Amino acid sequence: MTPLARYVPQHLQLTEAGGVITLTLNRPERKNPLTFESYAELVRIFRAGAEDDAAKVFVVTGAGGNFCSGGDVHEIIGPLLERDTKGLMRFTAMTGDLVKAMRACPQPIIAAVDGVAAGAGAIIAMASDIRLATPRARVAFLFNRVGLAGCDMGACAILPRIIGQGRASELLFTGRAMRAEEGERWGFFNRLTENLAEDAAALAAEIAAGPGFAHGMTKRMLAMEWAMGVEQAIEAEAVAQALCMTTQDFRRAYEAFAAKQTPVFQGD
Amino acid sequence: MTPLARYVPQHLQLTEAGGVITLTLNRPERKNPLTFESYAELVRIFRAGAEDDAAKVFVVTGAGGNFCSGGDVHEIIGPLLERDTKGLMRFTAMTGDLVKAMRACPQPIIAAVDGVAAGAGAIIAMASDIRLATPRARVAFLFNRVGLAGCDMGACAILPRIIGQGRASELLFTGRAMRAEEGERWGFFNRLTENLAEDAAALAAEIAAGPGFAHGMTKRMLAMEWAMGVEQAIEAEAVAQALCMTTQDFRRAYEAFAAKQTPVFQGD
Amino acid sequence: MTPLARYVPQHLQLTEAGGVITLTLNRPERKNPLTFESYAELVRIFRAGAEDDAAKVFVVTGAGGNFCSGGDVHEIIGPLLERDTKGLMRFTAMTGDLVKAMRACPQPIIAAVDGVAAGAGAIIAMASDIRLATPRARVAFLFNRVGLAGCDMGACAILPRIIGQGRASELLFTGRAMRAEEGERWGFFNRLTENLAEDAAALAAEIAAGPGFAHGMTKRMLAMEWAMGVEQAIEAEAVAQALCMTTQDFRRAYEAFAAKQTPVFQGD
Repeated sequence: MTPLARYVPQHLQLTEAGGVITLTLNRPERKNPLTFESYAELVRIFRAGAEDDAAKVFVVTGAGGNFCSGGDVHEIIGPLLERDTKGLMRFTAMTGDLVKAMRACPQPIIAAVDGVAAGAGAIIAMASDIRLATPRARVAFLFNRVGLAGCDMGACAILPRIIGQGRASELLFTGRAMRAEEGERWGFFNRLTENLAEDAAALAAEIAAGPGFAHGMTKRMLAMEWAMGVEQAIEAEAVAQALCMTTQDFRRAYEAFAAKQTPVFQGD
Repeated sequence: MTPLARYVPQHLQLTEAGGVITLTLNRPERKNPLTFESYAELVRIFRAGAEDDAAKVFVVTGAGGNFCSGGDVHEIIGPLLERDTKGLMRFTAMTGDLVKAMRACPQPIIAAVDGVAAGAGAIIAMASDIRLATPRARVAFLFNRVGLAGCDMGACAILPRIIGQGRASELLFTGRAMRAEEGERWGFFNRLTENLAEDAAALAAEIAAGPGFAHGMTKRMLAMEWAMGVEQAIEAEAVAQALCMTTQDFRRAYEAFAAKQTPVFQGD
Repeated sequence: MTPLARYVPQHLQLTEAGGVITLTLNRPERKNPLTFESYAELVRIFRAGAEDDAAKVFVVTGAGGNFCSGGDVHEIIGPLLERDTKGLMRFTAMTGDLVKAMRACPQPIIAAVDGVAAGAGAIIAMASDIRLATPRARVAFLFNRVGLAGCDMGACAILPRIIGQGRASELLFTGRAMRAEEGERWGFFNRLTENLAEDAAALAAEIAAGPGFAHGMTKRMLAMEWAMGVEQAIEAEAVAQALCMTTQDFRRAYEAFAAKQTPVFQGD
């Protein structure tokens, strides 16, 4: 059991199996909105990922046929209107911390999206590494609908890199929902499936069986190279990959290959 | 009537309705080429956008079944061959200023493309935020056909972010036309429609009804984060969104929601 | 005959026709793996491209129905396990040098991919400018399968810019093969064809007939603007394009147009 598996969250569900940590937002009667408390708990969990060697992959999903309806209107938007400048900044810095924590943890994150993913819910899907969805998924970056800008939690930087600048601009300026089929065609969703939980679990297990240190390095470099020149990126990768060649998993793979076996990676 | 609506351009048409400024290139007998004068006028108009609070959205389109055939061969390319180094640099700096002005104005820009969009015409479509087209649209970054490089007015930076590096490379090295259907599939066109003017107007009206200050912030951040690291982008957005939370439009949205009404945004 | 056409490689085939240099990896019985020697030879050839004014375009392909199976397990991976830190770094720096040389040579590079493109073979396709493939092409960034990270030879920087961050993440974390049809849909392959060699040759000839100096400038700027802000990119292009306007090819195009002829570019 990994350290994270022992953590008992108060504002969502956390289960662990074979190094796969599954986080389920579970206020299905409200389509799983976020609150100040669940934001903070998600940040803590993803930050803890950096310290948990046995946790290999995260799956984020929602209960009851929806992913996440975003910041709750009554529990978040109302109170924000009472805050002063400092208080507003504290909130946006905290929501940004969630995306930072998701990008900084070494574990790949799979979002499994059914139904509504709206506002901060759309952001959580966007900030994951891989996204699976059902044909009923609808993803709305609807910040403009509540009078705000599309630049929320990194959306103006990350969304264009996933679906292209033109499509991202339309979604951010109109707030309209991206349909599941569009999301797949545009590269937001890696795959649509009617067996969401099973497929997400299978993909997570496959990645969890991979070379953990190397996976963490892939994720680290995807972030590090985001705004690097190509030459610098190639140099950074040369150093990073040389490091990975000193791991036992690299040797295990070769020895398994030589013995015509499947390698069993251990993450070191 | 917005300040821009009072401006009487000499080299194109300008109409205004409900905060939507529609610019129509209108030398249809030549497929709406650009001249030194129309370039300069477009720069002036988009720059004026930054000062015109009542202008909410731009629509750029062409008269007579074509968008824009680019720099006129006789009125631009011929004279350029007579220029010295300083004169050439003045021209390319001026064309670049058009794209800068389009990216710097706070209003979202919708390109409505029918028929030919070639050379600088393709660039104007590319430099817009959202692109609608008819199935007859053909977009050609044909600079190589006139002996020039694909790096014209930001194309090597912007086009790959819209359609991907591989597709952009093919278009820039061959100069071939991108068909409408390809453009939609690749994310250059947000949608194809037979009712181009109506659909562009409807989309413009929808965006014009949105929170203007926030829209301008979305556009500002899309530009600002272009080459930022992810962490920095998230931080920049936290500041920008906290600022948007101090606007009246944010309050209006909440109050409308609480009263089960549709918010009426006013852009402040 | 171009200088490169006189070069007699020892570890691959090189042919030249009309300024098109075709490189064929040719150990078909092993699906054209790379060795330390063929890596070094490829680096030398692409670097020589910078000095060869008569070489206009590169085509890279593989013999016998496959593109390239990547670093040979016995000839590369085995020996790497015997190397010390310094030796590993020398290897990854050398493989990175191949991608750098491909991006730095002024000639556009067309990859013509049939069958397997795996590991460093996938990278060579990715590092090309334009990619054609048969419906049988399968491209696998399978570094994780040998215990390594996806950050190999620039993959974490370049692949997301071609197919988007989400699709690239899936390929790099799972190592699964991208099918030809997916590759076309995602923008990795520019086109699928059953006439791979012919179509690649025709495309290469078309590009070779273009303005060579300008093509080299397009390629240079695509690299230079990779991590620039939009404003800076527009300024950089204004300078670059003004330079191209001083070439004879720009004048040739105008004169041909005025005479209603097809321009014959000469690359100066």
